[in-house]
Amino acid sequence: MNMPKKAVVLISGGLDSATAAAMARAEGFAGCALSFDYGQRHRAELVAAGRIARSLGMEHRVFRLDLRQFGGSALTDDTIAVPEGPSEGIPVTYVPARNTVFLSLALAWAEVLDAHDIFIGVNAVDYSGYPDCRAEFVQAFETMANLGTRAGVEGRGFRIRAPLIDMSKAEIIRTGARLGVDYGLTVSCYDADAEGRACGRCDSCRLRAEGFRAADVPDPTLYR
Amino acid sequence: MNMPKKAVVLISGGLDSATAAAMARAEGFAGCALSFDYGQRHRAELVAAGRIARSLGMEHRVFRLDLRQFGGSALTDDTIAVPEGPSEGIPVTYVPARNTVFLSLALAWAEVLDAHDIFIGVNAVDYSGYPDCRAEFVQAFETMANLGTRAGVEGRGFRIRAPLIDMSKAEIIRTGARLGVDYGLTVSCYDADAEGRACGRCDSCRLRAEGFRAADVPDPTLYR
Repeated sequence: MNMPKKAVVLISGGLDSATAAAMARAEGFAGCALSFDYGQRHRAELVAAGRIARSLGMEHRVFRLDLRQFGGSALTDDTIAVPEGPSEGIPVTYVPARNTVFLSLALAWAEVLDAHDIFIGVNAVDYSGYPDCRAEFVQAFETMANLGTRAGVEGRGFRIRAPLIDMSKAEIIRTGARLGVDYGLTVSCYDADAEGRACGRCDSCRLRAEGFRAADVPDPTLYR
Repeated sequence: MNMPKKAVVLISGGLDSATAAAMARAEGFAGCALSFDYGQRHRAELVAAGRIARSLGMEHRVFRLDLRQFGGSALTDDTIAVPEGPSEGIPVTYVPARNTVFLSLALAWAEVLDAHDIFIGVNAVDYSGYPDCRAEFVQAFETMANLGTRAGVEGRGFRIRAPLIDMSKAEIIRTGARLGVDYGLTVSCYDADAEGRACGRCDSCRLRAEGFRAADVPDPTLYR
């Protein structure tokens, strides 16, 4: 009997990464789900991440690293307010080098696990202006990863899988719905309350609600 | 009056990074020294890192992230022994993706500080077989960093500075001695005791001792 191949799957608790995780499972991967307790305001997403991993039958690891040690973002610094409504350019919710840091740690775990695929739910279409959600970044990270690791130099190497990169929010939601993702478990809001209920006003809430409308899929989001 | 330009300088407590830090200072940078409390065995190096930063007049930050959450190296897993004497290929003291993780966090801090230069004391000549100590890796990391950050996309971008990359251990020691580095503050041993005294037998001790001999510089290393 063949052991299922392993993949490290970054799960934030949001809609996108839950969909990417379901796509990894649909490809036959035994997912090792990884989330970060990085001092984010919206800690309800970590609870959501655990629920999503469980619903997909994945092992779930929460790695602690406190990015408040550096600050510099509305998501990790209580002195910077989360804006309501759309913003121009790269928003204050950008966390410096966040996906670089998260992918680096995913890479470290993948190398320990002997996994060769790392799934991340980044998306360049509705990407809210984040530079680390673009295909050029993902490709450059993969190149770097295969030069800087033992498994890259001596072994099979790594693939950074970003299956949502070119999808609209509506396409993501339709894909996840087809794969049986329970979006009622996911939390997208930048300012969710302790029970994971959404504000309905931030960038992320707005994109999510528009996505369900455009996908013509019932929206299970709980608002406070 | 011009403010001195800032650089993030990775300081491990060892000889190489102390030299790279002195080279940053000699270029006129106000160094922001960064070390990692990652669960390493040789914790005496963190004490040494603080002493080195102080001796160079640099602010020093110790970032906590426990890589024992993943394991997979003799340096972060007590069940894997540190070997004595030379080894073939990539040694068990290789920590999966360590420099990728460290540079990612240095990048995050640099972006918060508005620093554009990141100094790392990697060296490809005496590099003990680590893939993440080679110029190809450093160059690929820089490319990725400039695609994945706000400062890379909208601002001046980042340079990953690895001034020791092509130097022999003897050249490093001669350079540092010329810049006034007090190598008595540094700890290189993979298995130093709580006072920072070296074993004299591991790969790292061996390379260091040979370096001082080849440089014809007095070796201040304390052995136990």
